[in-house]
Amino acid sequence: METIQSYLKQRAQLIEAAMEQDLKTMSGVPETLHDAMRYSLLAGGKRLRPILVLASAAAVGGKEEEALPFACAVEMIHTYSLIHDDLPSMDDDDFRRGRPTNHKVFGEAMAILAGDALLTRAFGIIAQGATHTGLDPAQALALIVEGSARAGAEGMVGGQVKDIQAEKRSVSLEELQDIHRSKTGDLITYSVRLGAGVAGATGEKLEALTGFAERLGLAFQIQDDVLDVIGDQATIGKPVGSDESKHKSTYPALLGLEESRAWVHRLVVEAKDLLSSVHGIDGTRLTEIADYLTERDR
Amino acid sequence: METIQSYLKQRAQLIEAAMEQDLKTMSGVPETLHDAMRYSLLAGGKRLRPILVLASAAAVGGKEEEALPFACAVEMIHTYSLIHDDLPSMDDDDFRRGRPTNHKVFGEAMAILAGDALLTRAFGIIAQGATHTGLDPAQALALIVEGSARAGAEGMVGGQVKDIQAEKRSVSLEELQDIHRSKTGDLITYSVRLGAGVAGATGEKLEALTGFAERLGLAFQIQDDVLDVIGDQATIGKPVGSDESKHKSTYPALLGLEESRAWVHRLVVEAKDLLSSVHGIDGTRLTEIADYLTERDR
Repeated sequence: METIQSYLKQRAQLIEAAMEQDLKTMSGVPETLHDAMRYSLLAGGKRLRPILVLASAAAVGGKEEEALPFACAVEMIHTYSLIHDDLPSMDDDDFRRGRPTNHKVFGEAMAILAGDALLTRAFGIIAQGATHTGLDPAQALALIVEGSARAGAEGMVGGQVKDIQAEKRSVSLEELQDIHRSKTGDLITYSVRLGAGVAGATGEKLEALTGFAERLGLAFQIQDDVLDVIGDQATIGKPVGSDESKHKSTYPALLGLEESRAWVHRLVVEAKDLLSSVHGIDGTRLTEIADYLTERDR
Repeated sequence: METIQSYLKQRAQLIEAAMEQDLKTMSGVPETLHDAMRYSLLAGGKRLRPILVLASAAAVGGKEEEALPFACAVEMIHTYSLIHDDLPSMDDDDFRRGRPTNHKVFGEAMAILAGDALLTRAFGIIAQGATHTGLDPAQALALIVEGSARAGAEGMVGGQVKDIQAEKRSVSLEELQDIHRSKTGDLITYSVRLGAGVAGATGEKLEALTGFAERLGLAFQIQDDVLDVIGDQATIGKPVGSDESKHKSTYPALLGLEESRAWVHRLVVEAKDLLSSVHGIDGTRLTEIADYLTERDR
């Protein structure tokens, strides 16, 4: 079996190639808009969410290839959210993954529209992917309903609003968790449920994977905060302590560094236990992904 | 049979009530985001697109009630596009339908996110509406694919990009038509095809309705330009000549006022002829809508 590093790299390449191919199949798109979409979509990154789609499908016996369009869709949703979050009226970030943010290159109007276009495309890809892979159409519709809820006002978009409103004031640990549950957790959970769903998982398998995803999403966020404290600019590609300079509440600020790390560890143990608790899940890759993400230094 | 004025008013109220109800069913939405979505969604307007969904469904024997969720979805897509188009980095409009634009009330960040949330919700409503009304799920997926194309980079979003790029330079008549075909035409065409599609129309009926919608969309846009020239601020709710002051190309500028009006007339005649050319379409209401929209003075 290939190493986790090789697995992650290879799957990221697969997803990038599929997304690039998808953009090529679009017709009549103005060149600048196409460039702006492509710029952020192919700007690198861990590709955590789409890899979770593939790995979750495989974990319940599905074919990664059939899960690929759905993986592309969640990465498009994630990318649109980053483009909009970086805008001057939101987080006002000039750099993302070591490169100028979309609006710094293409201007604000084009960045907003590129985000809109990626979000819109994502739902088309899910519907189209369902048709091409022969997924039960009724189930595909249910997955679109869930995606709309988890990516929208009830989920990710709502989380971004909560995050903005929590800036410059101190929040409780409970509130911080609620913000992250919607802002980042919902799309991570959706990625796992989408992958498992298109592979036909239901009942206790889907429940166990959902519990896994929820814990992984939280662990990932806490680890991000931890790295923001201990990282250095060269390693994580954004100014160290940038959250702190915006007076954002973080887990290390609320709990201390050691307790934050211990919590990450507990969450990962719980997440892995959930996978092994149910018959019919091959949790090998998902376990490796959870370990890799929470032991990373960037 | 009720008058067209009464019909339009009653259907607009029906759609507004359904959209308001839909927002109420959402859970966990931050209050400010909810308010921002509601503000623009219930800000009035002609409700042309959702009424076209209902009227097209009825024209081919469908039930308006079953088409209602789909009508709400297109109005949400339309509303999100208006919120984003009004932003300072785009058209920078302070007023819309006589009220302050979303970002003037809620700030830019919230306006962007309210737009994102409405767009995201729209796809969820289509998928959910299909499930509740018992629409063939495979057909529902095809309608989502089409909606994604017509509302996204290949359609409306692409049209907004073309429109921005055409500002401050003169464009040919052909280019102007291409801009409007995507910027406003695609969503109008989708509204008609969505309504007809959920009512089970296929083949030549769907083709005739598509041709009707394409002509109506263009006629509507030309009429808008005509009204911008001859209207007055109190009547249309935006500064007269606002297009001109931004050096936007318009049909009257390219063709003259009289030729523009004559073209509107020809398009409406063609559109109505298409409806009556096919057996099984009751084009009464659609015909009245076309006449009403192109004879309007606001």
